[in-house]
Amino acid sequence: MDDESRVSLVKLIREQRVAALGTLREGFPEVSMVPLVAEPDGSAFYFHASKLAHHTQNILREPRISLMLSEPDDWGRDPQTLARIGIRGEARALPLEGAAYERVKSMYLERFPESAAHFSLGDFALYRVEPVAARYVAGFGRIFNLSAADIMAATS
Amino acid sequence: MDDESRVSLVKLIREQRVAALGTLREGFPEVSMVPLVAEPDGSAFYFHASKLAHHTQNILREPRISLMLSEPDDWGRDPQTLARIGIRGEARALPLEGAAYERVKSMYLERFPESAAHFSLGDFALYRVEPVAARYVAGFGRIFNLSAADIMAATS
Repeated sequence: MDDESRVSLVKLIREQRVAALGTLREGFPEVSMVPLVAEPDGSAFYFHASKLAHHTQNILREPRISLMLSEPDDWGRDPQTLARIGIRGEARALPLEGAAYERVKSMYLERFPESAAHFSLGDFALYRVEPVAARYVAGFGRIFNLSAADIMAATS
Repeated sequence: MDDESRVSLVKLIREQRVAALGTLREGFPEVSMVPLVAEPDGSAFYFHASKLAHHTQNILREPRISLMLSEPDDWGRDPQTLARIGIRGEARALPLEGAAYERVKSMYLERFPESAAHFSLGDFALYRVEPVAARYVAGFGRIFNLSAADIMAATS
């Protein structure tokens, strides 16, 4: 991967606060939005969601999901040049206690302090997605199929 | 629907230039990005795509898709308050000639003049999505399940 594409990928993983979440519902791919935090090396992505949300109900039936992180449109340049990555994986709820949970909860609340109250609600959990494969479009014609190892190599 | 939610919905449909497209690939929901134009009343959404693109290959096998339009994150307010709509429908290529094609091509090129060259390439087509159902989140806790008729009523 060229250096410019690598820098854009690191920025997507470390700075984007929202992702488009693709889940399955009645055989349709459903797309919703989730606030997101990621491990700095792209080895895992996390969102906090209520069991009452459609996408969480979908995940509990079928954990195979996709996440897409994209540079936001600025209504300026050609949107085909926006960097974006579609990540395929399975979403699994983190056990509600233990060091892993506390560490991710801290990462999440550092980014989204306004969500603190949700952590005391019984229907919320942190969902973890480990990338299985990804398709990264760094810009027009710069397209990469990435494994989890490729992502970690690019962010190191 | 309250007035504030209605105004946000009209803005999403008429102003957002990109959508997250959910398609099915090997049983996974795949999410990618497409530049988008919509009928002002939300009765149909269009994107221009190459048959070489993953998402187009997915659509040609399985036309059931979703589109999500979202206010872009501004790194300011709580992202849970961003207005967004997930639309379920089927994507169908418009026949490459005729008045309907020419009208949509004009709408598309008015928004994306840099894409003009793609219209002379044989692998590109305009795909039309008519909403079957939608889930609209106007902000935290303001969630609406909408039919195609509801969308058109809200934008009239």
